[in-house]
Amino acid sequence: MNVKEETSQRVARTQQIIIESQADACIISSSVNQFYLLGFIFDGYLFIQPEGDPVLFIKRPNGIEGGNVTYIRKPEQISDLLHQRKIALPKKLMMENDILSFSTVSRLQTALGMPELMNVSGEMRRIRSVKSEYELTQMRECANIHARVYEQIPSIYRAGMTDIEFQAELEREMRLAGSAGIFRTFGENMDIFMGSVLAGDNAQAASPFDFALGGQGLSPLLPIGANGTKLIPGTTLMVDMAGNYRPWMSDMTRSFALGTVPEIAHKAHRVSIDICEAISATVKSGTPCADLYFLAEEMVRRNGLADYFMGTEQQAKFVGHGVGLEINEPPVLAPRSKEILQSGMAIAIEPKFVLPGIGAVGIENTYIVRNGGLEKITVCEEGLMVL
Amino acid sequence: MNVKEETSQRVARTQQIIIESQADACIISSSVNQFYLLGFIFDGYLFIQPEGDPVLFIKRPNGIEGGNVTYIRKPEQISDLLHQRKIALPKKLMMENDILSFSTVSRLQTALGMPELMNVSGEMRRIRSVKSEYELTQMRECANIHARVYEQIPSIYRAGMTDIEFQAELEREMRLAGSAGIFRTFGENMDIFMGSVLAGDNAQAASPFDFALGGQGLSPLLPIGANGTKLIPGTTLMVDMAGNYRPWMSDMTRSFALGTVPEIAHKAHRVSIDICEAISATVKSGTPCADLYFLAEEMVRRNGLADYFMGTEQQAKFVGHGVGLEINEPPVLAPRSKEILQSGMAIAIEPKFVLPGIGAVGIENTYIVRNGGLEKITVCEEGLMVL
Repeated sequence: MNVKEETSQRVARTQQIIIESQADACIISSSVNQFYLLGFIFDGYLFIQPEGDPVLFIKRPNGIEGGNVTYIRKPEQISDLLHQRKIALPKKLMMENDILSFSTVSRLQTALGMPELMNVSGEMRRIRSVKSEYELTQMRECANIHARVYEQIPSIYRAGMTDIEFQAELEREMRLAGSAGIFRTFGENMDIFMGSVLAGDNAQAASPFDFALGGQGLSPLLPIGANGTKLIPGTTLMVDMAGNYRPWMSDMTRSFALGTVPEIAHKAHRVSIDICEAISATVKSGTPCADLYFLAEEMVRRNGLADYFMGTEQQAKFVGHGVGLEINEPPVLAPRSKEILQSGMAIAIEPKFVLPGIGAVGIENTYIVRNGGLEKITVCEEGLMVL
Repeated sequence: MNVKEETSQRVARTQQIIIESQADACIISSSVNQFYLLGFIFDGYLFIQPEGDPVLFIKRPNGIEGGNVTYIRKPEQISDLLHQRKIALPKKLMMENDILSFSTVSRLQTALGMPELMNVSGEMRRIRSVKSEYELTQMRECANIHARVYEQIPSIYRAGMTDIEFQAELEREMRLAGSAGIFRTFGENMDIFMGSVLAGDNAQAASPFDFALGGQGLSPLLPIGANGTKLIPGTTLMVDMAGNYRPWMSDMTRSFALGTVPEIAHKAHRVSIDICEAISATVKSGTPCADLYFLAEEMVRRNGLADYFMGTEQQAKFVGHGVGLEINEPPVLAPRSKEILQSGMAIAIEPKFVLPGIGAVGIENTYIVRNGGLEKITVCEEGLMVL
């Protein structure tokens, strides 16, 4: 299947949502959803009706052609332009209310004669959460590059480095391997730069953001991840850097021992691998997402590691999440999740431990959900490697 | 003045806005404005009344203490918590409507009994646009590091590199010099990763984003900047990478000739420097911002370079902008701008040219506006250097 057929199917799925929601139209403005539906992005409004080709109202860039393209300066022109195309103003309109600013949505609502608004963001995330074979191939390619970059970690590491010096070298390798740089996330509390490197007790620092672990960060405006901690013997180093080598991403964490580390670090790391393997051995399409969390939690408790699971002072209440065009897609693998695993979903499982005085340990892999079980796509040494 | 006095004055200025707007309260949730008003950020709501200390409703992180701090799980708790503090629900409420999502603002509005909403985003940007001496000192420090990093460009460059290979080495130097990585921008059409490197004809590629120049980019989801163009003799290389070494930033562009380039490249580059110097020699607090654009435009026309000014196929209609915690702060230096330069503003001036078959040339400097004129803080070789 080519990209054009892919995008046509995605538009058809969006039109199904419009019909099921009994709405008249949907407007898509976010980069991620425009790319998903068209294969490219623009500054403007993608207007989708229950049937027929979408109409593109474009502010920038110049040079996009087609019978369904109209250039505009401002949203107030859309009403007349719809009239010229003999399209009635929508009475019920779906928009990306979770993504676009209040001002942007309100202005468009006014420009279109105050239709009743419905939120399409969640539905778009739901359809994106089940991937096509084309998308899964991209994720496998991405995961493969992700693994090749991580394999360079032992040669990047030098005694006496700080976490940020180490991260800068790894970021360089990522960029040379084709990383887009920007790490796409969903939501208002998900700022991060290219991923997270956590050394020693910095892994305990609580962050305002909704990631699995925290870290103090380099700037008070970006309190997450590396903070300049020296990499010293007896502590651990956790690497959770972006797998953004394709628009569809992979998520992977590996941990390293700096010289000799206490036995509990090895034990907790082994439990993390065991949890991933236990989930992998039992989970498949149809499994409730909450069950993955309970399975992990039970193994953690049995090993007496509950105080260190997913943080210490602040503990994340999930053990994994969907991955795709954004790093945090549905489903979420959390105790209160109502979602059910479906074939074609891609999920990251990240049972992590933070050990005071030592640092973070554990792994994270990305898996594709199949009818028969999980397919691991982040294939890379999982043991606690000594640097 | 220490940070505490700084933040107190900023809160007082915000309270003045609430009073002038005849509102009852203001809620700040964005990272940039929380940092501006407190010196740190959290996931939650900063509730400010016309008088007295702000109240912090915090979801994450754990561990923030103080009599004005209350931990919450969701915004629906705020109404009761205000009541306990003997604070009446606001009837007129200012929120960051240009920044927060429609869903976030609507949910908070409902949780607080449907107050009338007013937008505070623009006013916050307006007060942030005039910097204190403390903030300007940060910008000077940042600009100084920015210049030291750019001075390494000749030693980074190697014949046969692509633009992205060059950029990866420069990003590494930036990170080792303390760059926060994330490049903070305002608005929904301002995605970028650490800045822009434009080589040869890639500078002509129109982008959906509102930056001065475009570039195809590496990914269809991030069509801006370097695209893998080989750095070849006879073309130019423009470097406009982030100056994010402090929360308050600097903006600077320098251009490079790869070997021998046509005379028009030298001429246009000289005109860019001349425009910066002419503006610097005549402009001061009290000058209308539009005048800076007209001055530049007149010099461009006189030199017969109008077809290449600020792009070719798509030309940006501004010659500069304010700089601060975000790279695009008020004022904008554009023909329709109604703003007047004020002492303490920091502005970037970037008269750039894109020459078909050659590439982009020109410079960008950051200046502080003073009563007597402009103070250039990005002090670094400006000529078209040959690599």
